[in-house]
Amino acid sequence: MIKLVALFKQPADAADFDRHYNDVHTPLMRQVPGLERMEVIRNLKGFGGTPEYYLIAEMYFKDKEAFDRAMSSPENRAAGKDLMTFARDVVTMVYGEVAE
Amino acid sequence: MIKLVALFKQPADAADFDRHYNDVHTPLMRQVPGLERMEVIRNLKGFGGTPEYYLIAEMYFKDKEAFDRAMSSPENRAAGKDLMTFARDVVTMVYGEVAE
Repeated sequence: MIKLVALFKQPADAADFDRHYNDVHTPLMRQVPGLERMEVIRNLKGFGGTPEYYLIAEMYFKDKEAFDRAMSSPENRAAGKDLMTFARDVVTMVYGEVAE
Repeated sequence: MIKLVALFKQPADAADFDRHYNDVHTPLMRQVPGLERMEVIRNLKGFGGTPEYYLIAEMYFKDKEAFDRAMSSPENRAAGKDLMTFARDVVTMVYGEVAE
């Protein structure tokens, strides 16, 4: 299983961010072929003070082949383009093979 | 479900880090009462260049009550103390309620 993790730092305007993330970005991501599951943690808490991150979204793909196909799909390009319109300054994306 | 996420930046010595993480830290974490599942992604990749993070470990707890009990357990204090011996400078921890 390959997991793609999107880490979002605290946005300038959380209400604006939430609206765009929920109403525009998530529906685009859900159309990406091969996406098996999404897990999102909102309003992250840390151990002391405001945490560096505001939201973590994780997207599961069956294997590296499915992940590569997903990443090069038009649906993912549309989601990536949208991401840059509202989260360019706050997002970090990493991925890798999941072990339990 | 509450997910505790530990984000580890690139360590100074990856081999040392892996050894301590696998042989000492993971066994300590697995003893924490209420821990339902762990997911670990190693050797993270990004989209261009070396990614900011090296490893992400996620720990699932049934609910906030189970999470709070886990965090205040002696087992978790032991794991936290160990964490500070090898990852103080590279670890960020956040948690929150998981939505799918």
